Amino acid sequence: MPVSDTDRPVIRHDEAGVATLTMNRPRQFNALSEAMLEALGQELARLAEDDRVRCVVIAAEGRAFCAGHDLKQMRAHHDEAYYRALFARCGEVMQRIVALPVPVIARVQGLATAAGCQLVASCDLAVAARSARFAVSGINVGLFCSTPAVALSRNVGRKRALELLFTGEFIDAETACDWGLVNRVADDEALDAALAELTARLCAKSAVALRTGKALFQRQLQLPLDEAYRLAGDTMAANMMADDVGEGIDAFIDKRPPRWRHR
Amino acid sequence: MPVSDTDRPVIRHDEAGVATLTMNRPRQFNALSEAMLEALGQELARLAEDDRVRCVVIAAEGRAFCAGHDLKQMRAHHDEAYYRALFARCGEVMQRIVALPVPVIARVQGLATAAGCQLVASCDLAVAARSARFAVSGINVGLFCSTPAVALSRNVGRKRALELLFTGEFIDAETACDWGLVNRVADDEALDAALAELTARLCAKSAVALRTGKALFQRQLQLPLDEAYRLAGDTMAANMMADDVGEGIDAFIDKRPPRWRHR
Amino acid sequence: MPVSDTDRPVIRHDEAGVATLTMNRPRQFNALSEAMLEALGQELARLAEDDRVRCVVIAAEGRAFCAGHDLKQMRAHHDEAYYRALFARCGEVMQRIVALPVPVIARVQGLATAAGCQLVASCDLAVAARSARFAVSGINVGLFCSTPAVALSRNVGRKRALELLFTGEFIDAETACDWGLVNRVADDEALDAALAELTARLCAKSAVALRTGKALFQRQLQLPLDEAYRLAGDTMAANMMADDVGEGIDAFIDKRPPRWRHR
Repeated sequence: MPVSDTDRPVIRHDEAGVATLTMNRPRQFNALSEAMLEALGQELARLAEDDRVRCVVIAAEGRAFCAGHDLKQMRAHHDEAYYRALFARCGEVMQRIVALPVPVIARVQGLATAAGCQLVASCDLAVAARSARFAVSGINVGLFCSTPAVALSRNVGRKRALELLFTGEFIDAETACDWGLVNRVADDEALDAALAELTARLCAKSAVALRTGKALFQRQLQLPLDEAYRLAGDTMAANMMADDVGEGIDAFIDKRPPRWRHR
Repeated sequence: MPVSDTDRPVIRHDEAGVATLTMNRPRQFNALSEAMLEALGQELARLAEDDRVRCVVIAAEGRAFCAGHDLKQMRAHHDEAYYRALFARCGEVMQRIVALPVPVIARVQGLATAAGCQLVASCDLAVAARSARFAVSGINVGLFCSTPAVALSRNVGRKRALELLFTGEFIDAETACDWGLVNRVADDEALDAALAELTARLCAKSAVALRTGKALFQRQLQLPLDEAYRLAGDTMAANMMADDVGEGIDAFIDKRPPRWRHR
Repeated sequence: MPVSDTDRPVIRHDEAGVATLTMNRPRQFNALSEAMLEALGQELARLAEDDRVRCVVIAAEGRAFCAGHDLKQMRAHHDEAYYRALFARCGEVMQRIVALPVPVIARVQGLATAAGCQLVASCDLAVAARSARFAVSGINVGLFCSTPAVALSRNVGRKRALELLFTGEFIDAETACDWGLVNRVADDEALDAALAELTARLCAKSAVALRTGKALFQRQLQLPLDEAYRLAGDTMAANMMADDVGEGIDAFIDKRPPRWRHR
């Protein structure tokens, strides 16, 4: 029996090359329950195979972006093997975002706490409403945000990461932007306009270049300088052989907009 | 024959779960002499075994936090083997701070220069008086701050670290905060209140969570993303089995303060 | 037949220990053509052997610092092997800057785009005119700035790096300074004064200390904490045996300026 869209934990909507995944459990503050993680994981796996998509937005219904794991569900399973599997699954979802061939943008309103903050940190880019607030608040229930720490410490300096992790305190959107956790802050009513402006910029680029770049960027981060340069140089040489680059350079020299082949 | 507290290079004072180590050579600007390093190393080794401690503060008597190594003592030993042993000992003290099971906070007034600045960078968190100033000034005496560079470059961006290391110039507390070397700046007369506010926040958390988190954070920083997630996931699953977490989640759901077992 | 200075792609000028390499293709916005890369590589190789040099400035003639690769030249060679060799050569030049025994400062006016922005990121320090602008704009012609990404992501946080790389958008000098890509911003007419102030500071330091420090800093960045400390401690012990350090410490204790032996 098919469920209606509004029953699904994650709703995908595609428009003009932008695939938006909307977490759809607003009353649970879009907690990353088993069902939510499963749905996110499946949608990301599908997106990884979809050549028409130019960029992905991770968004959320309701007053909160995401409040992290589903504490009630976790409390109902006092079993270390269950928890290992749960956190492994969550880590896999986060790494699918990093591994996705196209840029992923978080659209953040309200709260982004614990694994919800990790979700923002795991995206390539993030646009936040001015009223959004961020915390890694597991410490307040006796559970250090260990997996969120992995993503957070790769976005902000270590003293700032530790302050957030040890105190569980909130920072506002401006502070998150100042620290590098989000790229842009927009007035709440202008959040979608700011997001649309950013996705339009990305969609105007060559798909080959976006895909080449995302994969290269993430891989080179983990390499020593000489290996990073070797990989980047070879990647860029391959990118130069794409039809789009010839067209892009010709358009640049002719001072006209490029006409990309691989849209 | 027992020495009086005031003769010791480092004085430990415990109160309500906070162990404060105070460097006590104010006339030498708390230089990291052999005796000071020895005393700090011993106190840190004792603290590593002390289950009652919730967090540690590293503080200093007098007008300066710490002016780095004891240049007169170093000048009196023109012997490369001596210097190797001295810097190895200093590096060991810094790494004991990183390895300590509980959060370590620097309380900084006056000057924090050379290895004194390294001490701030090595702590998990730092609170500074508005009049505090920071430099890695070894270059001014012909001695590049090599060991301070290790800690500093893991706190601030590399161009900023190199500017400080090559020029020996001072930055003020606001700049140190902006760059991520300290977490909070307080008016000089409000420094202890700001510190107390921070330690009180930490002491209100579950000891299991703080200890779990500190160790995990430092280890995962040095791992590739997939290994970091594997370690963090397993760490978090083990943390979930602690009594405190059940109590923490129940308290959260019941909207009441948690009563931690492991204080 | 000797060419006049003004025909050369790179002009070297030495004054008081500062070697300035000036890119000299202003009408091509100092594009990193084969000839320019060849000339930069040769000058850097010569500088690496020159004991009289205390620091190096990379500067540029004309209205732009550097607009990246020479797109027309690249377009004329549709050959992946050619591109591999070109990017390998470019990566080698950038790594020579990092490996140079003395500090390297970028002097930036006008545009620094694509590999021109990479050049800024590869220098140890950078001083920018207030009107300077920075972008990694290859994405606009369908060519993701893969090799610039290596240097850029080692200067600024990853969300900021990705925003620049995916959008190709410009940031101004103040933003570049705020993000850690440049150290200082000066009014356009005061750029040379700001640069002179910085080079004078470096030239007042012991040459041994500057050379020791530059090499150590770059190496320790790529090591785990314990190995970084081991290397840094041994390096600092060797540095202590230099004549300059004894003189530096004596001068400090006597409150007089040091007289360095190795100028």
